[in-house]
Amino acid sequence: MTDADVMVNKVAIIGCGLIGSSVARAVRHAGAAAEISIADSDVGNLDKARELSLADSYHSTALDAVSNAGLVILAVPVGAMASVATVISGGLKAGAILSDVGSVKNSVLKSVGPLVPAGVHFIPGHPVAGTEQSGPEAGFASLFDGRWCILTPPDDADSAAVEALSAFWTKLGSKVDIMTADHHDLVLAITSHVPHLIAYNIVGTANDLETVTRSEVIKYSAGGFRDFTRIAASDPTMWRDVFLNNKEAVLEMLGRFSEDLTALQRAIRWGDGDALFDLFSHTREIRKRIIDAGQDDEAADFGRPHKP
Amino acid sequence: MTDADVMVNKVAIIGCGLIGSSVARAVRHAGAAAEISIADSDVGNLDKARELSLADSYHSTALDAVSNAGLVILAVPVGAMASVATVISGGLKAGAILSDVGSVKNSVLKSVGPLVPAGVHFIPGHPVAGTEQSGPEAGFASLFDGRWCILTPPDDADSAAVEALSAFWTKLGSKVDIMTADHHDLVLAITSHVPHLIAYNIVGTANDLETVTRSEVIKYSAGGFRDFTRIAASDPTMWRDVFLNNKEAVLEMLGRFSEDLTALQRAIRWGDGDALFDLFSHTREIRKRIIDAGQDDEAADFGRPHKP
Repeated sequence: MTDADVMVNKVAIIGCGLIGSSVARAVRHAGAAAEISIADSDVGNLDKARELSLADSYHSTALDAVSNAGLVILAVPVGAMASVATVISGGLKAGAILSDVGSVKNSVLKSVGPLVPAGVHFIPGHPVAGTEQSGPEAGFASLFDGRWCILTPPDDADSAAVEALSAFWTKLGSKVDIMTADHHDLVLAITSHVPHLIAYNIVGTANDLETVTRSEVIKYSAGGFRDFTRIAASDPTMWRDVFLNNKEAVLEMLGRFSEDLTALQRAIRWGDGDALFDLFSHTREIRKRIIDAGQDDEAADFGRPHKP
Repeated sequence: MTDADVMVNKVAIIGCGLIGSSVARAVRHAGAAAEISIADSDVGNLDKARELSLADSYHSTALDAVSNAGLVILAVPVGAMASVATVISGGLKAGAILSDVGSVKNSVLKSVGPLVPAGVHFIPGHPVAGTEQSGPEAGFASLFDGRWCILTPPDDADSAAVEALSAFWTKLGSKVDIMTADHHDLVLAITSHVPHLIAYNIVGTANDLETVTRSEVIKYSAGGFRDFTRIAASDPTMWRDVFLNNKEAVLEMLGRFSEDLTALQRAIRWGDGDALFDLFSHTREIRKRIIDAGQDDEAADFGRPHKP
């Protein structure tokens, strides 16, 4: 057992966007660390973090932030992980845990792993939580409450360090699962990456029509389309990096999605009502199971406010 | 001007599901009719409507409900419209307005139109509002508040009757637009029908995987997938009928969606980050415009409850 089981001496959060700032708030709310340092290369983000009093110290360079930290969490886009790791590697304390919050794990393991100095425990992580908003002000302390955080430790990871990181996320309100980076990337391809891609895609398709005006798309979006615009409003840099770094799993899942969609298209063309009805009746069950598992609210329409 | 501008003498609602029961509640709440009759061929639905005191009279046959009604609204699946119209045509009062709430308008116009007796004003309509839930107990009076209701009167429609129906929906809280049935079906194909189809489809794809368990799909659904399960939990009969009856427009929009998705797939395969970033930055703007237009809430994550 390390002292991180109880409380981390100092957590350094590198990158103060939606997720980084939520980690800072949740750490403070849960008393999960004695000290919080935040680094962000964007001066505006750092100023906002300071205004919001998210941390005990604020740093424009990541190297300064990690000094003496028992836990370092990289909360930058997946494509920026390696360059941040290069910058901080010389400043990491012996015995420290280095983790991240990236939505892709294999590329982080491969790009960051070799840069981690001996004596530092590198354990990639991914809290499966977020909103479509970005920046330090979009974060909130309860973001991880009841959501799953997946850790993908390398084969030779120190089990005490894995336990400590797991205890940290549990303290922040998460449930913790451990799996291989490969499996994580496959699972998230279908539960997150492909859903984002098709949401971005349909919003693009609707935007480009000549026969339906943009104003009509907006006015009648309550028919279903508006649901897709929420995740299609997610951070462009983060999501570009996800697709560039989880290419194989995304292409595999996308292939299956397109194949199934082609079959539905054929059912529509040939008027096969039974095939449509059969699929549409089965999918209801999954919604119910997600609600039963506490992963979504049972209120109709996501609990969107309806005026009285 | 007809007396329907002020208040309909009696509105008959045929079919008491989510939409029919919401119309009944909204009529009562707004005082939009002196009398409400409800018909439903499903005894369970009719009993629930009675328990909820949604109407002044309850009928197991549509013909009984329409007697002396100045406004009749068909709120049954699109595929059942013509058979209901056949049943009621002999009982419609001279001068009455016959309308509906179907999500497809051309097929309703073509299948119901010829069954409407002379002297009855047939004006198809579509309130673009709903939730994923079904049945009389799922309805609520504010469902149409701030949402658009589209009327698609035939070329020779009586303008006073169109005005009266428009006034009725306005009284229920809707904004009203008028367009051709053809254009409606094209617009709704992209703002509603294709979004539902791809939501149903991805839930089906996820359900069928061998490499990712169903339990994993549910646990990590907060990554984006759970959003899609909401509309994929919508009424199977209603949606089967939508796709069977708006085949051409859906296939046209689906073709564009798939073409665009193939281009994105290619960008991922070849690592074209700029193409991805470019699309992902543009789509944010549409979300903003939908919120500005009052068609969705600005709260992050649809305002889903997060525990404090």
